[in-house]
Formats: sequence, C-alpha cells, structure tokens
Amino acid sequence: MLSHISVAVFRSHFTTVKKTEKEVPMEKLLEIMREKEIDWYLVPTSDFHDSEYVSPYFQGRSHFSGFTGSAGILVAGLTESVLFTDGRYFIQAEQELEGSGITLMRMGQTDVPTLGEYLEQKVQVGQKLGVDGRLISYRFGQELERIVKAVSAELVWQEDLTELAWPERPALEFHDTKDIPESYFGESRASKISRVRKIMREENADAFILTTLDDIAWLFNLRGNDIANNPVILAYAILTREDAFLFMHREALKQELPGIIVKDYFEFYDCVSMLPKGSNIMLDASRVNYAVVQRALECGHVMDGMNPTTKMKAVKNETEIQNTKKAHIADGVAVTKFMYWLKHNVGKTEITEVTAADYLEQLRRAFPDCFDLSFPTICAYNANGAMMHYSASAEHAAVLKPEGFLLVDSGGQYLQGTTDITRTFVLGDLTDEMRMHFTMVAKAMLRLQNTKFLYGCTGLNLDILARGVMWEKNLDYQCGTGHGVGHVLNVHENPNSFRWLLRGDWEDGVLEAGMITTDEPGIYLEGAYGIRLENELLCVKGIKNEYGQFMEFEPLTFAPIDLDGIDTRYLEPGDIAYLNQYHQTVYEQISPYLNEAEREWLKDCTRKIDKIHT
Amino acid sequence: MLSHISVAVFRSHFTTVKKTEKEVPMEKLLEIMREKEIDWYLVPTSDFHDSEYVSPYFQGRSHFSGFTGSAGILVAGLTESVLFTDGRYFIQAEQELEGSGITLMRMGQTDVPTLGEYLEQKVQVGQKLGVDGRLISYRFGQELERIVKAVSAELVWQEDLTELAWPERPALEFHDTKDIPESYFGESRASKISRVRKIMREENADAFILTTLDDIAWLFNLRGNDIANNPVILAYAILTREDAFLFMHREALKQELPGIIVKDYFEFYDCVSMLPKGSNIMLDASRVNYAVVQRALECGHVMDGMNPTTKMKAVKNETEIQNTKKAHIADGVAVTKFMYWLKHNVGKTEITEVTAADYLEQLRRAFPDCFDLSFPTICAYNANGAMMHYSASAEHAAVLKPEGFLLVDSGGQYLQGTTDITRTFVLGDLTDEMRMHFTMVAKAMLRLQNTKFLYGCTGLNLDILARGVMWEKNLDYQCGTGHGVGHVLNVHENPNSFRWLLRGDWEDGVLEAGMITTDEPGIYLEGAYGIRLENELLCVKGIKNEYGQFMEFEPLTFAPIDLDGIDTRYLEPGDIAYLNQYHQTVYEQISPYLNEAEREWLKDCTRKIDKIHT
Repeated sequence: MLSHISVAVFRSHFTTVKKTEKEVPMEKLLEIMREKEIDWYLVPTSDFHDSEYVSPYFQGRSHFSGFTGSAGILVAGLTESVLFTDGRYFIQAEQELEGSGITLMRMGQTDVPTLGEYLEQKVQVGQKLGVDGRLISYRFGQELERIVKAVSAELVWQEDLTELAWPERPALEFHDTKDIPESYFGESRASKISRVRKIMREENADAFILTTLDDIAWLFNLRGNDIANNPVILAYAILTREDAFLFMHREALKQELPGIIVKDYFEFYDCVSMLPKGSNIMLDASRVNYAVVQRALECGHVMDGMNPTTKMKAVKNETEIQNTKKAHIADGVAVTKFMYWLKHNVGKTEITEVTAADYLEQLRRAFPDCFDLSFPTICAYNANGAMMHYSASAEHAAVLKPEGFLLVDSGGQYLQGTTDITRTFVLGDLTDEMRMHFTMVAKAMLRLQNTKFLYGCTGLNLDILARGVMWEKNLDYQCGTGHGVGHVLNVHENPNSFRWLLRGDWEDGVLEAGMITTDEPGIYLEGAYGIRLENELLCVKGIKNEYGQFMEFEPLTFAPIDLDGIDTRYLEPGDIAYLNQYHQTVYEQISPYLNEAEREWLKDCTRKIDKIHT
Repeated sequence: MLSHISVAVFRSHFTTVKKTEKEVPMEKLLEIMREKEIDWYLVPTSDFHDSEYVSPYFQGRSHFSGFTGSAGILVAGLTESVLFTDGRYFIQAEQELEGSGITLMRMGQTDVPTLGEYLEQKVQVGQKLGVDGRLISYRFGQELERIVKAVSAELVWQEDLTELAWPERPALEFHDTKDIPESYFGESRASKISRVRKIMREENADAFILTTLDDIAWLFNLRGNDIANNPVILAYAILTREDAFLFMHREALKQELPGIIVKDYFEFYDCVSMLPKGSNIMLDASRVNYAVVQRALECGHVMDGMNPTTKMKAVKNETEIQNTKKAHIADGVAVTKFMYWLKHNVGKTEITEVTAADYLEQLRRAFPDCFDLSFPTICAYNANGAMMHYSASAEHAAVLKPEGFLLVDSGGQYLQGTTDITRTFVLGDLTDEMRMHFTMVAKAMLRLQNTKFLYGCTGLNLDILARGVMWEKNLDYQCGTGHGVGHVLNVHENPNSFRWLLRGDWEDGVLEAGMITTDEPGIYLEGAYGIRLENELLCVKGIKNEYGQFMEFEPLTFAPIDLDGIDTRYLEPGDIAYLNQYHQTVYEQISPYLNEAEREWLKDCTRKIDKIHT
C-alpha cells in the first residue's frame, strides 16, 4: 500500500487546485507566516498550563485545520501542512480535513513518522520553525531545539501567530472563583504551603514555579470554572522561602487570601524574570511551558522533578476522604436512578445516547452540591461503545433499542468531591459470548478491587489482577486499567494509576493510603460492542506485621453491576462472593435515597447470586 | 533496647582483653596492614569474576574472621574490625565471631549503618582504605572513591593483603574443561561471537571485555569445574572486531578452539592495558571488577551496560530447550523415586536431613549424564525449613519423624541441562493450618505457571499472581518468586526473574520466548516450618492477534505435589483443574521410568482430585 507520506504529497497537490473555492483559516495563518518569514509553525492542542482540556481561546488548531477532535497538532508549512493525531480520531480527522489541503498523519501507524521525525525530514538549513513557547512543555521544546540545531535552522518561540491569524479568536475568559469554605479541604493553604517549603529547604530550592492548574487549585484551596469540567482557575504561582505569589485575574478572586501576594495573570512571565540571579528554581520541566523555563534559566539553576504538590494532592486527607464518600453516595444514587429509568423505558419511549446522557446529568444536578460534570459523559450504544473515546452529538446519536449494551462513563463535580463511574447496562437479550464478556469485565474489576498487597506496590504490580482475566482469553483493553482522581478537581491526576507498561515520563507512583484510583477494565470489540465497568478505589492501610504494612482498597463507587449480564459459569466461587458482598454494600448505601419502587427494584438488582456447581 | 552500634563498642572493649588468648588469623592481617600503613582493609566474599559461589582461594573473609557463611564482608581496621552480613546469617555469625574481637553488623536492621555509611563515619582524613581491586565491582569501587575523596583519604586497590597475610592460602585451582560436543549447545561459538560483534558494530564498540564466568562459558561453548556447582572455567575474555581472546589455564583446555586466541589466565590484565588508545570498550561496570575497569579507562572510553551475552544466554535455543526437557525428566524421576522412598521409610529407618540429601544425590547421579548438583541441596525438616538458606551438616542434622514437613530444594547438572526443583513432603499428620498453608503455596505456584500475558511483561508484572495468594492472608515470603536458570550453567542467571520490587541495579528483563525462570513461592514460619514448591517454567509464545503477541509458560519440572498437604477447601475450582492437569502430565512424563511399585504409587499420588461444593 501507499505510505502515508506519499499520500500527503498527492493531497497537497490536489488541494492546491481547490483551495480558493472556500475560505480557509489556514490561508490567513500561512499569510502571517510568510510575513514573519516563518517556514513551519506548530499549533498544538494545549494551553499555557499543560491542561487536559483547553478553553476556546486555545482552540487554534481546530480553527485553522477544521479538525475538532480533542488531541492533535497542526504543522503549518509554507510548502505543505500536516496534522498529527492518534488512533481515536483517524476517521473523524479524515472527514474533517477533507479538502483542507492538510494531510493527516496517523500517529502510531507503521511508516508514519513521529512529529520529531517529520520535522527532522522537513526543516531545512536556515529555515525558521515557529511555535508559541507557552503552549509546549520545556521537554518538548528541548526536542525542537535539537532538531533545528542539527540543520542550523532557527526556533522562534516568542511569537503567537494564532493571535495574529485569528481575528475573531475568543477571549481568554476568567470566571469567578467558587465559594467553597476552606474547611471543605481539610488543610489550610498555609499548612500546605509550609509543607512545600519544607521540601524546598530540604532540596535547597529558593523558588518553586508551579503552573499546572490542579496543583495550584489544591495548594491555594481555590476552585474556579476556567476550564470545562476541571474546576480550576487560570493562574500561575511562585513560592519563595518567604513569599507566595499567585498570578490570576484579580477581579475573579472572591476570597480573602491572607499572606498570599496576588498579582495579575499576565504579570507572571516578568516576575519569573525578576527572580534573584543564581536562584535554585524547582519546577517540573515536563509540565511547565518552554517560555517559562527559558526565563527561569536566565535567572538561575533549574531543578527539574515532579511537583511536590502532585503527590501531596494525590494523598487525600481525612476530610477529603469523608467528603468524597458523600459525593459518591449522591453519584451512586443518580446512576442507580438512571439505571432504573433506563431499564423501565428502553424500547417504550425514544431514548438516544444524547437524551440518556442528558437525563443522567439532570439526575446528578438534582443534588444541590453538584455543580458540573467531571468530564463529558460517554454514552455509547453497542458498536459505539467499542470506540473508547466516543462522543455522541445531537445529530449523530444512536437510538437505544431493547437489545445489546449501553456503556455509560460519567462523573460529577460536587462540592464534596469528584466522581468517575462507568456502568454498562444490558438493554435486552444477549448471546452467550456477550454474557461471558460482561462477566469477565466484572470479574476483572472485582479482583483488583479486592486485592491485598504490601506497601511499596505500584499500579504496575497490580494491573494484571484485572487485565489477566482478559489475557487468559487472548483479549486486552489497550489503555491503562485506572488513573488517579482529584478531590473537587481533575478527573485524571498523577502519580497513581494501574498500568502494565511504563511509558515516557509517566510516574509509576507507589500506592499510598489516601490515594484514589479508578479500576476500569473493559472489552472492546470493533463494530460490535464495548463493555467497561469502573469503580473508584480508595487505598487504605490493612494490618501491619513482620512482613510489612499491608494495604487494600475500599470501593468508593456504589451502583449495581447489571446482573442481566452475569453468567456464573465464568466466575469462581470467590468472584461470586466478591460480587455479592459488593452488591450488599450498594444496597445498604444507596437504598435510603430511593423511592419505594426504586428500592424494591434495587433489592432485586443487588440480590445474592448462587455459586455454581459444574 | 541497645542499638547495635552501642553493642559494637561494648564488644570491642570486651574482646580487646581476650584477644591474646587464642591465635587469630586476624592478627596476621592487622600486622600486614600496619606494615603497609593501611588503616582499613576490606575482605569481601567474592572472586575476580563476580561469581555467586567462590572457590577456597577466595575464602579470605572466612579465614580471617572465622565466620563461614556464604555472604559477608570483613572490614579490618587498626582500631576496630567489623563484619557485615545479612539476616540469613545473624545467628551463625554471632556464634562464629564470639571472641574474635570482630563486631557483627546486622545488615538491614534499624540503627545499623550500611557499609558505605560505616566507612563514611570511620575513615578519617589522610587515612588509607585498602581492598583488592579485583574483588569488587567497578560500581562499588566508585562508591569507595567517593567516600575517601570526601575526607581526603586514599583508596589503595592494587594490593592483595590476603595473599601476604595467609601463608597457607589454598592455590587457585584450574580443572580440565568438560568434553561436551558443541552440538549440545545448539549454536556454534563462531555464530555466538558473530552475534555479539553485530551489537558491537551497532554500538560502535571496538572491544568487549567479558569477565563473568557463565557468560564466557556460554559464549565459547566451554564447560568446566572451577567453581563448585557452577560448571564454568576460570577465564576472562576480550572480543575485538577481529579477534577473540580467551584467557585461561591453557593446560586445562581439552578442546580445539579454532579462531580463538587462547592466552594465559594471568596475562589478562596486561592485555587490557594493551587495547589501542581511544578504544570504545564495552563492559558491564556492575559485574566487571574495579581493577579491570581502571585499566580499561586508561586506554579508552568505557561503554557501560548489561553484557549482550547475558540476554542471549537467557534465551534458550531449540537444542537447549529440547535437551533441558530431557534433563528435567531425569531429574523428575530422581525426585519422584526419592519421594517414594521417603514416604515408605520415614519413621521406619533412621533418616536425617543429611542422609536424605545424600540419597537424593545418589538417585540423580544414577543417570550417567548427571555430573554434579547445581547447588548444595537444602534438605530442611520442620523448623529448619523456615530458614530460607538452611544447610544441614553431618553434626547438626535433624532426624526425620513421621510428622510435619520436609522441604527439599535441589538440582542437578546434566550434560543436557541444569535443574532446580523444590518439593515439600508431608511426613505425617498435619494441622488444618498446615494444610491450608501447603495448599496456598501450591495454588500460588500453579497460578503463576498457568498465566497468559502479552509480550512486554516483566516479572514485576506477574509476581503478584503467586505472591498475592500469601498477601491475601497477610503473609509474604521475603525473596523473589523466581530466578532465571542457565543451560548446563549457573542455577541463577539474569535478566529474567519474578519479583515485585526493583532493587539496586537488578535488571527487570522482558520475558522472552525461550527464557527459563523458576516459580517458587513459599511460606516460612519461624520456629515452626517452611513450605516451598518450585517448578521451572519455560516461556513460550501463545497466539498473536490484534492485541499483540500472547505469551505463556510451559512447566519443565515434573514431580508430584504432595496431595497429603492439599485441602481443597482452600482452592477455587480453577486451581483444582490446574493441579489435576499438572499431575496428569507428571504421570505421563515420569511413570515410564519407574518400577511397577513406584508406578502404582505415582498413579495414586497424581490422582485426579475433586472439586469442592461448599
């Protein structure tokens, strides 16, 4: 078959002919590039803070290329332009790039160069490679430096061409901070700052630059609404041994912050440059943007490492734990009510993936303390469930029929905590194989949830407890088994996770008591269906004896596992005991919040099932 | 309680009074140290090749200190002397050091400094710290360099004081090489050398220095008898792009080695110094001794990394696999016959741990191709079995009674391969708890043996399949679950293993098809009993599909798991199926080599047991 590079050349020619026919924002960008004599310009999908979701202001890549997926990087070139994205988006990107003159680079496929390899091939002697240095990590910037240096080209990182080429660019929006009493967080910001300073002293750091928004929200006990689903505020922070600077939109700040020096968001870069010469500056070069680190390097010595706040934040304190448990009860009630509604209405009234997701959101928001979803709900029927990051739209939403599986991965932001739960619901008759697959997923989730282990384990040690169930049948799910979850914060956080392969600069954190990690194995059969079940697990201490400190998990998530999908032939007696025990707790925790009809139904949904004798 | 450092000071005083009362080889060493003006002298337990077992020539530590355990390092000092050893030997070392004036340093205990910390405290400005540079790895030597540098002391590594202080030191013995046809190894030395040279070219290495004896034995298809239980020859090797030098005792060489330049063992160091200036020299600095690397550094640039031979050696070729399988059948027959004898004679004739081990050795050596044991047999009755590295002696051997457990960990060196097997035998009535523990160990071993996994896993991913069974009951075995095994070579080899913690510079190798790893979980209850079961597992390819290459294990070891210890209440139906399936294979593989009485008995020993219905 033709390699993708060949295809790219062809497409480039093809669209040169067509490109005048419709207005393409790309033209404007290329025009600015010509003006600035920049040969290549990178438009990544990121903000200044390495956030997972980005606000409309940072949607330049989508604006110029037309590709609206959540991940991808546009390489605009005076001779050719390409867009790199990953397997989740190949089909969508192909459709959306049609006629744009931009070639799709399918990341991870054989014969497709990596972004680095592509740039190495394309950037020529004396050319200029541009990028907004605030949109890339220092680590990535170093890689670009290496590439341009090899051919005596130049890296231009101080200019934001997106701003120049996108006149109607949305404004950077700063929303008011949320009014959450500090007591909800279980530790004062003064105490947190003092813990960070202790590490700074131990490491002999004079300053600590923090730019990741969830770390900042945690450290300052502030929450906001500047990024969809992530209750963070756009801000930067610098801690010195004496002072704590917070850079944000002052008018948005609705709290008193005694002892904190609040400066404007846009003053940050100049303040970095004003750090005393020779300072030891602690920062995480894989998260802090290139422009910041360049300025830090001009002042002093950069000490690179994981932000100390990241691990502190991951270990929840007693207040956070108790509050999170409350949030999960509310969330479990919403999901249980949703399941009741779904089971009673599918096939009777028209329900689509979108109306179902909307109804679930409504049930969550019925709790006054639920102020947002923690991520866009994935509500995926049958074959759509096999696409791990499927997102239904009003125009393209499947109608649910009383057959097959509906996978619903959803979560809420509550004043008490952040939730993330997946249940796959059985809407009608299943084949034997479908029941086997559903049962395997339940078995996998329950085995990991019920394990005991010695302190010192990371997710790398435990992943096989869930994944091994799939491997036994020559199946796999091509993602991690679980990720850390924040407290009234981001639904994905480091350093804890369950994975079997170490990748890149991913931290494989030791599982500490107080960490919360999702447990979400699945089976995804392209064109057929996807099954995923997800509980959140709180890591707690077990007994301590001569062998060490034993650790275990306490499930935080309570909602039925659909017994219509369970075939006990595929469970060991021990698995059945796990399931019954879990269902008993679900009933105890959730039933008090249901009406009588729902409660009766839940009783049956969580009934004790029998061991098998084959 | 008193810290060990306090104890040390006290003992030192105490023995100063007594030390003239008996002749102590230490005095001779201290005398030489005074002559040479060396303040501290390290006598490790090692040879020039980082071997696991060392020949009598290298027993200086034992000679000077009186402590005969297999691990430990003596720090002789003009002001005080100490001996570091690990938990396996605390009791023995305490007894053997009594009255020697040498203080025991219990490694790993709270308040006991590490060797490095101890030297940091003790070595003073301007003092001399001595060690035979051929007895320590370069990595360790660098640590010593750092310590002396910090206090402007001096590291003296060119002198072997052991030689001067031990007049009756045994000679370094060189035995004849074994006559094993090259066809037994499945690949010619020319082909192996050519594979190494390919890597040298890829890495741009001009020379490769190899000093580990098992790597040399593998690369040159030579076996010998210079170290007990390890069929290796004392040798060094240097490969250049054109030449292959082997440094050994020429008279010991009984083969033609076309294309290999054989030089005397003692010419090696000078030849390292003769490498062309500026050479890129590949070696493993964690295995090659300090004296060698010092010389290499004088010539050129050292490229440090795991010996490429180590991974090549670990991946067995088809001939090695087929031969190893034959060795395991012979070995399984010996162990099965031993079990028959043991079960029929215990309590009737006097059997001790030593006579039992001797009888098992006799059964192994009944096979003409068995030329050695692969390590000293551990034959440990009841409480002795709880000591992981117990070694019975003729004077201190327990007599077996018809009760409790006998743990036997043993292995043979056959012309076809190396074996390592542990079985724990039930000699009489057991309590419920004993049966539960035995059953747990069997379950743990069988679960790891029967797992399937995706290519890319290391032992770190899989360890919990065995260990998790213990963890579930708040138990642990404080060692790895398994180690790599050589082919007609060392019973412990890298880089494959099953462990849950990464330690030091241990390589966590990806499990490749053709690798052989032991699977040996256990339960050790101090003062009561030890239970260990060990099969060797061959890693083989399973099916390959869209998820990747699946891998699985094939057991190589065939001997019954004593059903008298099994309580099916503690097994899931899946575990029982694993056990029955394994026993069926044991019967098929072993029964043809037994007499009728033994065969009938084996039939019963490997009978299918029932699933339970509780």
